[in-house]
Amino acid sequence: MLVLITYDVNTQTKAGRTRLRKVAKQCVNYGQRVQNSVFECSVDNAKLIEIQHILEGLIDKEVDSLRFYILGNKYKNKVIHIGARPSFDVNDPLII
Amino acid sequence: MLVLITYDVNTQTKAGRTRLRKVAKQCVNYGQRVQNSVFECSVDNAKLIEIQHILEGLIDKEVDSLRFYILGNKYKNKVIHIGARPSFDVNDPLII
Repeated sequence: MLVLITYDVNTQTKAGRTRLRKVAKQCVNYGQRVQNSVFECSVDNAKLIEIQHILEGLIDKEVDSLRFYILGNKYKNKVIHIGARPSFDVNDPLII
Repeated sequence: MLVLITYDVNTQTKAGRTRLRKVAKQCVNYGQRVQNSVFECSVDNAKLIEIQHILEGLIDKEVDSLRFYILGNKYKNKVIHIGARPSFDVNDPLII
């Protein structure tokens, strides 16, 4: 099934910027980056629980957040994209 | 139906930061902000076309992007939130 992961990480501190990079790096292991903080992951339930657990351990729940949208298997015509296509490298310097 | 709007606006220039503010301001008119660049909007097809058209006119399609995810009407158990900024149900009465 397709799962959309979106995240907000507070990057006002150096620790926050480190968290952001860690979250992005993990998401890359599970899916396709479609925007800066948006990943589409094709996973089963077990993998979903796994990534939830990993990401939950990386963020500061007081200031950061994660959202998971379960889009299911029939999602092809449920997504509309307008504009630039992503070309991100999680190892690139952070631009805010 | 619930539509998720996510956007990436390149804020490396002053013009980009202005575009970002304009996009966010428009999204606020249509739904609930759940993360920095993620809005959940309860709209019909006509409203969806309207917001698409408005946002498309605000971004620079060379460097920015918009994504619309049609989550439909049965979305209650399709969304998992972890961490800061609890989400709101766009159909709930507004409590101030």
